[in-house]
Amino acid sequence: MNETLRQIIDSIQPLPDAPPETVLTHLDDLTKPPGSLGRLEEFAARFCLIRGTDAPEMPKKAIFTFAADHGVTEAGVSAYPKEVTRQMVLNMASGGAAINVLARHADAECRVVDVGVDADFGPVPGVVHRKVRRGTANLAIGPAMSPTEAEAAIGVGASLALEAANDGFSLLGTGEMGIGNTTPSAALFAALLPADPERVTGRGTGIDDGRLRAKIDVIRLGLNNNRNRLGDPLLALAAVGGLEIAAICGLILAAASRRIPVIVDGFISSAAALVAFRLQPNARAYLFFSHLSHEAGHRIFLDAIGARPMLDLDLRLGEGTGAALAMTLIDAGIRIYREMNTFSGAGVSRTRAATP
Amino acid sequence: MNETLRQIIDSIQPLPDAPPETVLTHLDDLTKPPGSLGRLEEFAARFCLIRGTDAPEMPKKAIFTFAADHGVTEAGVSAYPKEVTRQMVLNMASGGAAINVLARHADAECRVVDVGVDADFGPVPGVVHRKVRRGTANLAIGPAMSPTEAEAAIGVGASLALEAANDGFSLLGTGEMGIGNTTPSAALFAALLPADPERVTGRGTGIDDGRLRAKIDVIRLGLNNNRNRLGDPLLALAAVGGLEIAAICGLILAAASRRIPVIVDGFISSAAALVAFRLQPNARAYLFFSHLSHEAGHRIFLDAIGARPMLDLDLRLGEGTGAALAMTLIDAGIRIYREMNTFSGAGVSRTRAATP
Repeated sequence: MNETLRQIIDSIQPLPDAPPETVLTHLDDLTKPPGSLGRLEEFAARFCLIRGTDAPEMPKKAIFTFAADHGVTEAGVSAYPKEVTRQMVLNMASGGAAINVLARHADAECRVVDVGVDADFGPVPGVVHRKVRRGTANLAIGPAMSPTEAEAAIGVGASLALEAANDGFSLLGTGEMGIGNTTPSAALFAALLPADPERVTGRGTGIDDGRLRAKIDVIRLGLNNNRNRLGDPLLALAAVGGLEIAAICGLILAAASRRIPVIVDGFISSAAALVAFRLQPNARAYLFFSHLSHEAGHRIFLDAIGARPMLDLDLRLGEGTGAALAMTLIDAGIRIYREMNTFSGAGVSRTRAATP
Repeated sequence: MNETLRQIIDSIQPLPDAPPETVLTHLDDLTKPPGSLGRLEEFAARFCLIRGTDAPEMPKKAIFTFAADHGVTEAGVSAYPKEVTRQMVLNMASGGAAINVLARHADAECRVVDVGVDADFGPVPGVVHRKVRRGTANLAIGPAMSPTEAEAAIGVGASLALEAANDGFSLLGTGEMGIGNTTPSAALFAALLPADPERVTGRGTGIDDGRLRAKIDVIRLGLNNNRNRLGDPLLALAAVGGLEIAAICGLILAAASRRIPVIVDGFISSAAALVAFRLQPNARAYLFFSHLSHEAGHRIFLDAIGARPMLDLDLRLGEGTGAALAMTLIDAGIRIYREMNTFSGAGVSRTRAATP
């Protein structure tokens, strides 16, 4: 592991289990029965805990959508041709993809990052150009990439998170675009949870029964052909992961090292989060899990780490769309914290009725 | 039943089961796999269906929070003294209650309506003064109000919805404030679903085991003492309901009559929705159910009518807070519908990969 990455991982501090007492006291001083805003209060309290404050600013928000291609698409694991990755990056650069719309809705900046698309964009505006290589190799046959390339892709995500921290961003969301990328994600869940590939492999953008069986077989083959590389999270990421997954992992680690909460999007982003936890268990406390993906296997992961998703809307698009929606709920919680009247100020009775 | 109410009820048209074909075609032309935005697409399609359009404007939104008192509080069913209703109305009028914050977050207007608070506000600004009577009578002993009073309270909600329609509002949310009002709500669920009071009675703002048992007994007593009035939805509403519940019922009916979708808040608003369905089954199709309340019994109602709530955030405050949050999801769906690029325009391959 390179020294920069080692330093980031080592600098992620464990967080206390509970938010500061002053945060909880303030939430209970708001003019409502204690805890009656449920998870909104939890979101506000966790944001305060991560940021280390009892007077939070409204977050400055950005979503990073990392795009890359996957050699495993040659095994027919996706409903769409690989060419769509390039097209969708251009679609995002034009501002008309789902993530652009939902990022605007959430008042978040949207950054589209080419970390490994198998195409030459030239200097297209609206794309952050950080290509590590043009797509991965076919993980069914051998390693998707070298450990050095995986670290380089982690470094792309990490450096963008550190830049965002320096620019004052205080809430980041993850996203991705990459035809075929539910396959490496399922392979990582299978390798690192661990889990039977059958339990964590789903239909992605919409494959039929036959192709689903083939996808599971491809993952089994890839795990077998890479079996000597699965004992270490970084080697496993290189062997059966993807460049955008590595970049998200880096974003998470570097954000956590700067006490910036990260909203994890869906299935693929969760695979990246799992690699991040395996590299540094302290990273877990800095993450919000935005939604329960419609993709089979996502619930198995969330249950395994004890995370309750914020939303359940049958989303299965990725791009960061779930993270964008979840940002509006974090904002809602923080506004509650900042803007509600308090019992100490409002002339509302805090005293409960005497038992009759 | 008075003639105005009868006309509103009769003018609520049944909706087709499916949205217009042009709406579904447009959703599938957006640059994403078909259906991959899950419920966001459903929300947009249902909004279009209700509004009768395939080119929806962004909704103009308002939340109506109806406040009233309940004679049954003298039986000790709540954790808070009745006085808190008046205090909270003033808190809302000042803009510092939870609903004010979340309505601002949702870019919705917030209207606080006194339909039956047991206090004289005088001409306080920020409150819509439509008091029908100063609180209900104790439903444990006899009818909470007369049928005429119930119709008057329904008329308050209905007239505000019709005014909102004339002012161009196209998405309404329900809310309420009334110490003790989970008791009449549970009584209405018990009477109209019907259900055993034990299954639909919860802890409201936070009562302990002993008070919960007493609350269930009070509801049983009220249902028994009003047993000759429970066969008709309007008489049941008068007998064991509340003034704010009646007003919400009227808001729902009148909005539906003008093809305006209504987002139902939580447990108490759902009781009002149930009365509305019993008066006019066609009204069901105009409603979105914002969230699964933490209040026991809410799930029983939602399951009974086959509704899947939009959010599950352990909210148990009421006021319209769940409706406000849900508005942001409807907006998100409509923005997706309006702002995303299409395959026909974007140069993204719609063609799926051939089966390998």
